[in-house]
Amino acid sequence: MDAFNNLIKCLGRLPGIGRRSAERMATRLVREPDGQMAELIGALEEVRRTVRCCPKCGSITATEGGPCRLCTSLARDGRQLCVVEDPNDIALIERSASFMGRYHALMGKLSPMRGEGPKDLRTQALLRRIKDEKFEEVVLALSTDMEGDTTAGYLAELLKPTGVRVSRLAFGLPVGSGLAYADALTIARAMKGRQEA
Amino acid sequence: MDAFNNLIKCLGRLPGIGRRSAERMATRLVREPDGQMAELIGALEEVRRTVRCCPKCGSITATEGGPCRLCTSLARDGRQLCVVEDPNDIALIERSASFMGRYHALMGKLSPMRGEGPKDLRTQALLRRIKDEKFEEVVLALSTDMEGDTTAGYLAELLKPTGVRVSRLAFGLPVGSGLAYADALTIARAMKGRQEA
Repeated sequence: MDAFNNLIKCLGRLPGIGRRSAERMATRLVREPDGQMAELIGALEEVRRTVRCCPKCGSITATEGGPCRLCTSLARDGRQLCVVEDPNDIALIERSASFMGRYHALMGKLSPMRGEGPKDLRTQALLRRIKDEKFEEVVLALSTDMEGDTTAGYLAELLKPTGVRVSRLAFGLPVGSGLAYADALTIARAMKGRQEA
Repeated sequence: MDAFNNLIKCLGRLPGIGRRSAERMATRLVREPDGQMAELIGALEEVRRTVRCCPKCGSITATEGGPCRLCTSLARDGRQLCVVEDPNDIALIERSASFMGRYHALMGKLSPMRGEGPKDLRTQALLRRIKDEKFEEVVLALSTDMEGDTTAGYLAELLKPTGVRVSRLAFGLPVGSGLAYADALTIARAMKGRQEA
């Protein structure tokens, strides 16, 4: 049963998947070797062959051609650069239709707990791009946890010498919710960032 | 990006994986086409080639040979049959070292919500095994939610004509916990099933 345990280990290394989840997934796949299992293998192989991260911004794109559509489109604002942790965040921001500039995925965030330091982030590429592409504003769209805060602070320091303006997404209450569902820290941050109604 | 969306859909069909989880998993895999992605494809192919569900009890076993070790071992008690929902539950019970009989995985539970009825469970095979293998007791080790309760009630009715004794795992407080962490229904069930100290 080494093969089965190895599959559980592989699945368990994916983000957000614990051991119990990995066991359930593996069991389901064994039950349908020619169904879900075959489909998943096919889907993975197709993605491996045709999809990659854009070498410039890091977003998910086709393996063919150079930088992705987001990096090359002339319709986008070349003065603004939005920095995210994960390529998936780019898709989330695109869905919100609230940003029309370029993107840069760090591929992680500073996390002493997980042993991830500045070297694990794409910060050198970020500095190079700011210099080469002459951005005027860098928008940090990082997570709002301790690690996101640390990363934002680190980047603000790092980018200071470049003279670029650095901003961060607003903190506040999520839309469609109420005070009853917000924690004290969120309410405090929303209070601090309050705007004229 | 059809290949990427297709992978997200495939991953999202696995138990317990929502769309957001599937997106994060797919993104991670694209980031490491020759790392995690290659490893996962290899692990899946190896499992597909060498692992299957035992045709008799449904547990995870090697593709070679007939029924699994649990079904054939002479060291196990052939009078007791433990009925579970999922092959994975067999591993969980084995880890508890509390049962020494045979197993039978239903491969699901009655779930009107998900459109799963008696035909989707391995009940005919269960009836045949009870007749052929002359079990004296059937232990239902089903989940303790509404669907598990429904399935247990259905099986108790179904098995009545066979004359086999049907029992179900005890309800009660989990070990290593306290009343403060138990919901009212669990406390009520534990009270009803109380035993001499």
